[in-house]
Amino acid sequence: MPQNLPAWRDVLLPKDAESVRRLCRAAGNFTPAEEEVAVELVSERLAKGLASGYHFLFAEKDDFLQGYACFGPIACTLHSWDLYWIVVDKALQGRGLGRRILAEAERRVAAAGGQRLYVETSAKDQYEPTRRFYEQCGYRKEAELPHFYAPHDAKIIYLKILAGKG
Amino acid sequence: MPQNLPAWRDVLLPKDAESVRRLCRAAGNFTPAEEEVAVELVSERLAKGLASGYHFLFAEKDDFLQGYACFGPIACTLHSWDLYWIVVDKALQGRGLGRRILAEAERRVAAAGGQRLYVETSAKDQYEPTRRFYEQCGYRKEAELPHFYAPHDAKIIYLKILAGKG
Repeated sequence: MPQNLPAWRDVLLPKDAESVRRLCRAAGNFTPAEEEVAVELVSERLAKGLASGYHFLFAEKDDFLQGYACFGPIACTLHSWDLYWIVVDKALQGRGLGRRILAEAERRVAAAGGQRLYVETSAKDQYEPTRRFYEQCGYRKEAELPHFYAPHDAKIIYLKILAGKG
Repeated sequence: MPQNLPAWRDVLLPKDAESVRRLCRAAGNFTPAEEEVAVELVSERLAKGLASGYHFLFAEKDDFLQGYACFGPIACTLHSWDLYWIVVDKALQGRGLGRRILAEAERRVAAAGGQRLYVETSAKDQYEPTRRFYEQCGYRKEAELPHFYAPHDAKIIYLKILAGKG
């Protein structure tokens, strides 16, 4: 494996709860409530396995967590999935690792039968890099819900069609 | 209390899992997967209490479950709530019980600080009565996600602003 590629891991370990907390906190753009949700998804998965509905993809180098994605099938849909979370280590941002993690997550969603991958983010200025990231990765805006997160903080729902990639 | 008004209950009992399953099955318009989700929300609430994020409102008459709603605050939002579920006993439909349950649920959401109540449903023909019900109760269409549930089965997101009702 080339030096610059991370190793993928999709089986969870108890240490992941703390690794994910550290990663989210260091990333700097998550609120304490969002950090709690990120850790809660890990705890749910550790407690319930895949029945939790949460799939994880960890990118590691020498056992150090560089970034990860959390995604899963949306209940009561035929082949719609949600990308719940994607985070890259602060020190490694801007080098394409997020794109690699997202592409690998999409590949796994498609292989599992997912054809539509949704992701939600805020319309606020501070999330402009996040939105640009999704747009550059082939996501298009599917809907916008004004004042969803807070007054004047809309939710944007992005979608990427994965059909045919499985 | 007038004879035609149900008694409200918001504390869950272990028997509710089976009562909810019976109610959903008898209603006839839920798939087995949807029925499982309905029961799972009850189980989550029984296991975790309000930390589950699921609030319930049961309408009962002589200890018989006539209908119920399940709703809760949306994580990482300031005052947006989701109405996850609302069901009325098949034999009692068309008599205004659903409206009563929804109005009481809205009152409780507003009292808890919720200002925006979202509810999602399908755009398919068979859900036309459901959509009309929400529209008559003051919900307006906020967004539509084509092919969300399945090919040619869109999700419609409705919203009711509750601000000022608390």
